[in-house]
Amino acid sequence: MYNFKNDYAEGAHPRILDKLAETNFEQQLGYGEDNYSLEAKFILKEKIGCKGASVFFLTGGTQTNLIVVSALLRPHEAVISVSSGHIQANEAGAIEATGHRIITVEGENGKVTPSDIQQVLDTHTLRPHVVKPKLVYISNATELGTYYAKHELQSLANICRKNRLYLYMDGARLGNALTAKDSDTSFEDIAQLTDVFYIGGTKNGALLGEAVVFTIPQLAQDFDYILKQRGALLAKGRILGIQFLELFKDGLYFELAKMANDNASEIADAIRKLGYTFLTDAGTNQIFPILSTSIIESLSKKYAFYVWKKININQAAIRLITSWATEQHVVDAFISDLEKAHAGIEIY
Amino acid sequence: MYNFKNDYAEGAHPRILDKLAETNFEQQLGYGEDNYSLEAKFILKEKIGCKGASVFFLTGGTQTNLIVVSALLRPHEAVISVSSGHIQANEAGAIEATGHRIITVEGENGKVTPSDIQQVLDTHTLRPHVVKPKLVYISNATELGTYYAKHELQSLANICRKNRLYLYMDGARLGNALTAKDSDTSFEDIAQLTDVFYIGGTKNGALLGEAVVFTIPQLAQDFDYILKQRGALLAKGRILGIQFLELFKDGLYFELAKMANDNASEIADAIRKLGYTFLTDAGTNQIFPILSTSIIESLSKKYAFYVWKKININQAAIRLITSWATEQHVVDAFISDLEKAHAGIEIY
Amino acid sequence: MYNFKNDYAEGAHPRILDKLAETNFEQQLGYGEDNYSLEAKFILKEKIGCKGASVFFLTGGTQTNLIVVSALLRPHEAVISVSSGHIQANEAGAIEATGHRIITVEGENGKVTPSDIQQVLDTHTLRPHVVKPKLVYISNATELGTYYAKHELQSLANICRKNRLYLYMDGARLGNALTAKDSDTSFEDIAQLTDVFYIGGTKNGALLGEAVVFTIPQLAQDFDYILKQRGALLAKGRILGIQFLELFKDGLYFELAKMANDNASEIADAIRKLGYTFLTDAGTNQIFPILSTSIIESLSKKYAFYVWKKININQAAIRLITSWATEQHVVDAFISDLEKAHAGIEIY
Amino acid sequence: MYNFKNDYAEGAHPRILDKLAETNFEQQLGYGEDNYSLEAKFILKEKIGCKGASVFFLTGGTQTNLIVVSALLRPHEAVISVSSGHIQANEAGAIEATGHRIITVEGENGKVTPSDIQQVLDTHTLRPHVVKPKLVYISNATELGTYYAKHELQSLANICRKNRLYLYMDGARLGNALTAKDSDTSFEDIAQLTDVFYIGGTKNGALLGEAVVFTIPQLAQDFDYILKQRGALLAKGRILGIQFLELFKDGLYFELAKMANDNASEIADAIRKLGYTFLTDAGTNQIFPILSTSIIESLSKKYAFYVWKKININQAAIRLITSWATEQHVVDAFISDLEKAHAGIEIY
Repeated sequence: MYNFKNDYAEGAHPRILDKLAETNFEQQLGYGEDNYSLEAKFILKEKIGCKGASVFFLTGGTQTNLIVVSALLRPHEAVISVSSGHIQANEAGAIEATGHRIITVEGENGKVTPSDIQQVLDTHTLRPHVVKPKLVYISNATELGTYYAKHELQSLANICRKNRLYLYMDGARLGNALTAKDSDTSFEDIAQLTDVFYIGGTKNGALLGEAVVFTIPQLAQDFDYILKQRGALLAKGRILGIQFLELFKDGLYFELAKMANDNASEIADAIRKLGYTFLTDAGTNQIFPILSTSIIESLSKKYAFYVWKKININQAAIRLITSWATEQHVVDAFISDLEKAHAGIEIY
Repeated sequence: MYNFKNDYAEGAHPRILDKLAETNFEQQLGYGEDNYSLEAKFILKEKIGCKGASVFFLTGGTQTNLIVVSALLRPHEAVISVSSGHIQANEAGAIEATGHRIITVEGENGKVTPSDIQQVLDTHTLRPHVVKPKLVYISNATELGTYYAKHELQSLANICRKNRLYLYMDGARLGNALTAKDSDTSFEDIAQLTDVFYIGGTKNGALLGEAVVFTIPQLAQDFDYILKQRGALLAKGRILGIQFLELFKDGLYFELAKMANDNASEIADAIRKLGYTFLTDAGTNQIFPILSTSIIESLSKKYAFYVWKKININQAAIRLITSWATEQHVVDAFISDLEKAHAGIEIY
Repeated sequence: MYNFKNDYAEGAHPRILDKLAETNFEQQLGYGEDNYSLEAKFILKEKIGCKGASVFFLTGGTQTNLIVVSALLRPHEAVISVSSGHIQANEAGAIEATGHRIITVEGENGKVTPSDIQQVLDTHTLRPHVVKPKLVYISNATELGTYYAKHELQSLANICRKNRLYLYMDGARLGNALTAKDSDTSFEDIAQLTDVFYIGGTKNGALLGEAVVFTIPQLAQDFDYILKQRGALLAKGRILGIQFLELFKDGLYFELAKMANDNASEIADAIRKLGYTFLTDAGTNQIFPILSTSIIESLSKKYAFYVWKKININQAAIRLITSWATEQHVVDAFISDLEKAHAGIEIY
Repeated sequence: MYNFKNDYAEGAHPRILDKLAETNFEQQLGYGEDNYSLEAKFILKEKIGCKGASVFFLTGGTQTNLIVVSALLRPHEAVISVSSGHIQANEAGAIEATGHRIITVEGENGKVTPSDIQQVLDTHTLRPHVVKPKLVYISNATELGTYYAKHELQSLANICRKNRLYLYMDGARLGNALTAKDSDTSFEDIAQLTDVFYIGGTKNGALLGEAVVFTIPQLAQDFDYILKQRGALLAKGRILGIQFLELFKDGLYFELAKMANDNASEIADAIRKLGYTFLTDAGTNQIFPILSTSIIESLSKKYAFYVWKKININQAAIRLITSWATEQHVVDAFISDLEKAHAGIEIY
């Protein structure tokens, strides 16, 4: 049984484990003051072309989202997100637990649009009886496998700046977004167009770890305190620093993301060739093909995946997620099994 | 320069790194549902003699403390702790950030006493104008290197049960407490005498990780939700499961703790032999010798440590922390250098 | 200019002011221990037929809602409400500020339906990644002027009990709901069908004040602490006790509510007679007639009210709220002015 | 039985009740937009000599304290207070419930000293493991009946400004502080020396109500939202506006406070004349005479008061609180009864 349910079913890229072993007995300072964390931050700031940025390493996405929101917002300020956004759909009320409302908008293909934001602003004017929209949360890549084009990010940045809203990008799968085949957005663009974003390690080669980047350093003021207060400051911060250093000292991070995308792309092409359509025009390592229930049943015998959405009595969209660790022979086998199932041949 | 400032300056015990590498490409379920986490929990429950317990893995001590308190207490309920307790002294207000007051007591040698508790109960009666004491927080080993004798824990358990207070033990250094030379307390005793406790991994051989144990499973009801909500649920939960499995499948955890204690003990004996006294009668891997400022200055050239407390103009107590990773030659060198400094010989 | 914008534009019913003056120089205990509060609670419990209930007096609706939710829910538990519910639409994120998500449902005519609740339960199963629905919030009368029929409340109570959800009624306008012309629900019914509800004073004759009733006293455990902690415990609790005693020692509370309803009803009848329709089939003291923009403009010269919803380019629904303090001559004048405006005659 | 336990045992000054009745049927805007609130704010700003100030009306002291702290502090910032401060001793953990620690200092006679503050700053440097002191809370008059001299406030203001700490004054009994016999501080001084303060109505003539004054209007930014979110915005805000207008349109507020002080002073003089001493050198409407237990027992038959502190087996300090509503004949009777008890004559 092969698991296409997520991109965190395996451990870390071997280079990371090797580096952890190699440096294991060096004494390093705790709490992120170690040499590896410092070097990793330096390199990250160079790569995004923003040497004045402030970078922090945390251990997971939910943790990062809740601490960023908690650090940036005053009690009455609220977050805007699409309904499918991770903070709304998958984080057990983490944002509300820090005291803030999420105002949900419909979006398009998992993406927030400027008109979504405008509508929220227009309907939140009866001060002080309503919350004050203050931060726009976007995921890139989104939870539907889509990603933002550069002009889309520019439009969002424009409306946010005009209305003094923070633009915050959840980059749990940022690598996948930036290496998508038709992506026109660079790492530097992300830094220029958002106020805060995070670079996901867990879903792209690391054991764990996310790097938050405040491109406006004033926004990071006292972030260290809040990070500690919420239990996110690792004593052995080196294990995050070492991982991000290994991922970014050359191009490993983006190589891994591209491998994950290519795996998905190869599967998607095969599906398309068989005449099937998709729920979203994804482009990254998450694809949502619409298949017949009998084919879904067949594939379920050998592959684990989520049935995402019922389309009608005979069809449903499933979600397949690939990663850097998905091997070519798995991709080949899946395509072959799909073709068999399509042809009505039993698979096992 | 050797660092005696803490017990998290190195990485993990090599067996842990090996196991992470060995299992790296296995696909496992996320969020702590992996086989390693399940097996580690099973073994832990056996070892504490409490098969009905509920066990959860988290990434750090502050995180664990704040989530346990948050899960157990209603808004008006408060925590009792000594002033030197980690939650009061070193966690950036994490407990208050979850909405709860810490009522501090003086304690003795870093330990809460039954009379401390009684006094808090006696002075918190003017309902509803005061907070309601509900949870007693103790660290074992304490922040002053001391540990609780069995009869002390029994007394605390008694007064807590009588007054419907939870007894919660922060076991960041539980291994050190249980393997202290004169300790009469077993792992099973801890489970029987506390309502909740955690077993620290970070400071005893792991890269990161703490295991929370609810000995009364009802207290753990819905703990998974709260853990997720606070950002403590790792996607790759396997990395915690694998570490705890490795530490507990045989006696590694306690071996490492004993090594740390022995290292401290050897240094303490040498210090005592030279005629110096200690701030506390520690017994674990943290010792607080009182030395002259000139000796402190000399040692500072080759060793990093905290000056803990000024005693008078000529003397101060320093804190030395050893770990499983402190090698014998370092212990020997330190003792030799101390003897030199004591004899007025310059060290370098 | 007469104000139909709300039902709190005047002070209190004169009997209340008289009673405050009459008892002014008596010394009474503070913090709700005064004789008047005790007597008012006793009478309320009698009137709802639930002598075991626990009753508390607070100063306003938002305060009451946030404290009840805060007292009943654990951190990961969430509230279900219609989008038009006061907690969602008008309370500046008060519920989220206590740490809890509001899951919004569409409802019908401002009312939650059992199928709304079922749908929320069905879509919140992916534990622990989602919040746990735990409390159903309903307003009665609703923000759209409608009220719950007895069978509707019974259905809600059934699904809530079956799924261990609390049913909480915001009764800011409970008097208006129970005295609506076709209402088949009694005060006792409310106590039997909800777990907690509050009886609004502010909008029905009091200067300020709401009475929270826990029909299951265990749910009120330690509520006094939380009420104090949130700043809701008045030093001079007598001023709430005196008002509720005056409102409930005879039938004043329901008389005032009925007066408000009758005023609205008279206006609604006149509007209907002129051929206009309504946005909702209200029945209480809030009505939402759909008028032409030119008539709305005419009426605006002499009357203040909210334009609630644009219907089309020529029509909009306005909201008119009456109260016990709306005098007959105002009702008559408004109807007369409306008839003039309808006939194209200018009003002034 | 006469109650000396507090200064809120009676209702309001009759002029306030009269004004509420007189204005009762006027329609006014809700939520503090009424004419009376606006006028009261205007007058207050004139009287404190700070026309740029921002003023808000709330209903009680605990509510005011928690909302001010909540509005001013970021999550990791803490409050400094003496142990006897109302927020620490009597508010059920309200400050911690907003997420902030109170760092307690010993103080002198219930007052914070600059050296207290310096010591807190000196011991909170290990960023980010400690909280960040940010707001100094002082009560004036204090909970021990004492008040701040002008030079004391100046010293506090100096150290606060130097260290970017907010100076916040809880003025539940501000009137009593400013009208104390030897007070050298004016209403204007308070506005100049603090960043935020509140003027207590409840304990000085009002039914309920406190006026918060932000002397630096930027600090009040969005305070209205937070006030609403915490349930402190009264629908009928007029009842607060009318009361403060009545108290401040002439000198009523300070007259009432002086009456309370004079009553206490007369009793204190009589006690002193009999040879007794006091726990604190109070000066306002709270006095703490040290009496023999037999005299305390005698007085308890006719007067209610708190026994504040045991001095030894035969003596205790009691707390007597007078108010504007304490009549001369009560003062006379108490003194006469005390003289009898002192002479060993039974009182009844």
